Amino acid sequence: MAELTGKSIIGFQSGGEGDPTIFGINPATGESLQPGYAAVSEAELNRAAEFAAEAFEVFSKTSGTAKATFLRKIADNIEAIGDDLAQLAPQETGLPEGRIRMETGRTCSQLRLFATVAEEGSWVGARIDHADPDRAPVPKPDVRSMERPLGSVAVFCASNFPLAFSVAGGDTASAFAAGCPVVVKAHHSHPGTAELVGQAVSAAVRDCGLPEGTFSLVYGPGRETGSALVRHPAIKAAGFTGSRVGGQALMKLAADRPEPIPFYAEMSSINPVFILPGAMAERAEQLAAGLHGSMTLGVGQFCTNPGVTILDSTADIEPFVAKLAELVGASPGATMLNPGISAAYDSGAGALGGNVAVETVALGQAVDGQCQAGAALFRTTADAFLGDESLGAELFGPSTLVVTHDGADKMLALAKSLEGQLTATVLGTDADLEANRELLDVLETKVGRVVVNGFPTGVEVCRAMVHGGPFPATSDGRSTSVGTGAIHRFTRPVCYQGFPDALLPAELREANPLGIRRLIDGEPIF
Amino acid sequence: MAELTGKSIIGFQSGGEGDPTIFGINPATGESLQPGYAAVSEAELNRAAEFAAEAFEVFSKTSGTAKATFLRKIADNIEAIGDDLAQLAPQETGLPEGRIRMETGRTCSQLRLFATVAEEGSWVGARIDHADPDRAPVPKPDVRSMERPLGSVAVFCASNFPLAFSVAGGDTASAFAAGCPVVVKAHHSHPGTAELVGQAVSAAVRDCGLPEGTFSLVYGPGRETGSALVRHPAIKAAGFTGSRVGGQALMKLAADRPEPIPFYAEMSSINPVFILPGAMAERAEQLAAGLHGSMTLGVGQFCTNPGVTILDSTADIEPFVAKLAELVGASPGATMLNPGISAAYDSGAGALGGNVAVETVALGQAVDGQCQAGAALFRTTADAFLGDESLGAELFGPSTLVVTHDGADKMLALAKSLEGQLTATVLGTDADLEANRELLDVLETKVGRVVVNGFPTGVEVCRAMVHGGPFPATSDGRSTSVGTGAIHRFTRPVCYQGFPDALLPAELREANPLGIRRLIDGEPIF
Repeated sequence: MAELTGKSIIGFQSGGEGDPTIFGINPATGESLQPGYAAVSEAELNRAAEFAAEAFEVFSKTSGTAKATFLRKIADNIEAIGDDLAQLAPQETGLPEGRIRMETGRTCSQLRLFATVAEEGSWVGARIDHADPDRAPVPKPDVRSMERPLGSVAVFCASNFPLAFSVAGGDTASAFAAGCPVVVKAHHSHPGTAELVGQAVSAAVRDCGLPEGTFSLVYGPGRETGSALVRHPAIKAAGFTGSRVGGQALMKLAADRPEPIPFYAEMSSINPVFILPGAMAERAEQLAAGLHGSMTLGVGQFCTNPGVTILDSTADIEPFVAKLAELVGASPGATMLNPGISAAYDSGAGALGGNVAVETVALGQAVDGQCQAGAALFRTTADAFLGDESLGAELFGPSTLVVTHDGADKMLALAKSLEGQLTATVLGTDADLEANRELLDVLETKVGRVVVNGFPTGVEVCRAMVHGGPFPATSDGRSTSVGTGAIHRFTRPVCYQGFPDALLPAELREANPLGIRRLIDGEPIF
Repeated sequence: MAELTGKSIIGFQSGGEGDPTIFGINPATGESLQPGYAAVSEAELNRAAEFAAEAFEVFSKTSGTAKATFLRKIADNIEAIGDDLAQLAPQETGLPEGRIRMETGRTCSQLRLFATVAEEGSWVGARIDHADPDRAPVPKPDVRSMERPLGSVAVFCASNFPLAFSVAGGDTASAFAAGCPVVVKAHHSHPGTAELVGQAVSAAVRDCGLPEGTFSLVYGPGRETGSALVRHPAIKAAGFTGSRVGGQALMKLAADRPEPIPFYAEMSSINPVFILPGAMAERAEQLAAGLHGSMTLGVGQFCTNPGVTILDSTADIEPFVAKLAELVGASPGATMLNPGISAAYDSGAGALGGNVAVETVALGQAVDGQCQAGAALFRTTADAFLGDESLGAELFGPSTLVVTHDGADKMLALAKSLEGQLTATVLGTDADLEANRELLDVLETKVGRVVVNGFPTGVEVCRAMVHGGPFPATSDGRSTSVGTGAIHRFTRPVCYQGFPDALLPAELREANPLGIRRLIDGEPIF
């Protein structure tokens, strides 16, 4: 096992002058893990942010090839500590070793995918409009533009993805690919895992000869350290995955800065699943099994967890509900990520079960002990759901609320009543889908991703993925946090008018030395 | 002349139950123009926003071809009233007829440029990742994504572009091209011009058989009507060009909504011009003439007006200053757009001239009368500029502040001290530019567009243009308000997973029926 120092990483320096106050907790045992981590001081936080701003001057000009080498080096370094991660992260998170190994693989794949994007280089969206000195009444200037990095980025680790959405997760990979230095705020839920990965990133910075401030990792309480990071003038954008309350508080800080900055928060989603009558008639048991797998995957601790299942009660839905109840009832209890998430699930599930309009259909096997969650299946009616906002709130954990309705009109009313979501899922036969085009149209306006005949969990990391969606699923539905499109979260277009060729960025030089795809005088040229 | 009704346009209905309270004013005479316009009632405003939300259901699905026909029809309709506009707009704005005719042409070209973008269709950035059912450990789903319209858009007319940034200006053209209905808030500075153009747009909506709520035009005070529009839940994005105070107030409203929305404000820019020593030695008189033309163009009422000119006093700058002073001194007075802008220029220029650290080098010819502005040339030192924030505030009008410095270090300090800008300009010989790469690097981080050996006014409407920039130049430096890239202000990515081919948008169907450029399994295919 690599040595844990219990300290923040401020460029190439070690932070942590203060006493350790942040300890990982083994959620299964309640045991406090060593070492403890000191919160960064104000001076250390300032240094991390200012280092990043300095590093931007060099890193923002670093070639795509060099950024690719850096991203691949990070992936190699993380793979090299795969066994350490597989040993430590389960202790901190309660997640099984297999999941940690799979998430480590995904994290490295993500880094390498962004390496190919940076290396290939066309992501900058280069546009060239040539001059026309003879145009009347005024000559046409030479105008060229491309995406450039925004500046230093703050990345908040997510508790539920200790690797893929944390220190070297999607936001960090896309920010680095764009040319932005990153200051990561560690999550108190897996501080040791964060440090292991932070050391891997920091070593890659050194090995690749990149400027010191390209990467820092700071520890501290969200309210102080996280807020200070978002407010710091040297930080020009931030990415966050977490609760709606936390995300909205940081959104407000970002908007209220003297210089407001883009703030990408992924916050809250109930990921409705609509089962249409034809599919229900055809494969109720299979659907119940699929839904059960999706709702209990990872103890339901995914942003895309199917929290609401909408059924047409003019069809025979009882075999489906009975099968799902059987599966939920037989589900073993499991350990949640941390005491906070576990307590929130317990109180949320308790409130739902205690709602007079809600029937508790089945509960999974109860397990005594720290942070144990049992699966839960609740049921209510469309009218109750439409009349009580609390039924549409996210319950983070292995549960779903079945909402029954009496046909297309009420189903559309339910769809239209939804807040913004990461995903919506429709399960139906071809005839079902054809007959419910309006449902698909409504859902498209509510979500970042519409899934047909699949389940929302299991976000494919690919070029076409959109993991985002209208508020409150995210703070800003114009982007994705998964897939190669995420690079554009941390960029802005810059236009170069009348530049001598030699002073243009390589991407915009006439001879196209990087061989990238460009839009030239309106035509795509390759 | 087409008949002016003095009423808002709410879909196909005529608004304006109240008494007329908004009158155009001929800035040159102070004369109040007829008809007066009633502010929309709350009910009318709600109707416009709700009509737009209803129209979105159809208009968001309208084909690129149909949107192109619509945009071209608007352009045709505006051209057909070119003489009316050329007669009315100068009365309302003080702008000369030639400028109005040129701006009418630009407005129609813009609409037609967006028509070609909508028609060609590749702007949606379609991405397709094919399924791989045999992939282990889990099958790979079919994932496709593209940009989709955000929803109904509020557009605020700008006083300084009664056509190109007003009712059928850039924001409206790009929102329509994206598939978003538009509710325009007229500017009190040219209400009749707004109505003429509004009638042209409204007729195009009817003629093209588009839904009624595709377009509305509302009149009312900014504080009430404008605020209510930005706060309205049916509005999903807004575009604004105007003052920093007004823009920031609306930014805050947009961020504080229960559902925050993207708000694109273009607000404030002093567009620094750096003249390097070699160019100064080579062509001082020519530079002075060019700068004079740019600073006085349109009575200096452009967002890109060069408000600060930064000179290296280790070179012989006095011939340049003398020539510029001569030209400014000989500049005829001219009429500003409205009494508010004129009063702000007078008081701003007065404050600058009264600053003990500022020398008033030359004043243009004084003209008595309403809204008359004279050109003004001020001068100060780098140290004074760096020590007094007020010297870096935008002064909207035909003036520039020469700031002298003693060499590269101070020049870089000046560049680094700048807030976000729309543009920065560098005038230099090839040797100057080569020796000042660091200046270009710093400016790139501050602006949306760097101009070399040109002047910032005269924004080319083309694919590569970026008219935007970091705060406070705009509220959101990630976009442009001019050029085809502006379509992405009003879109968000949506992902379709596992869809039957027939239910996919045409842009994503396997056979590519629209023949657009797509990224398929990571490769660009055409």
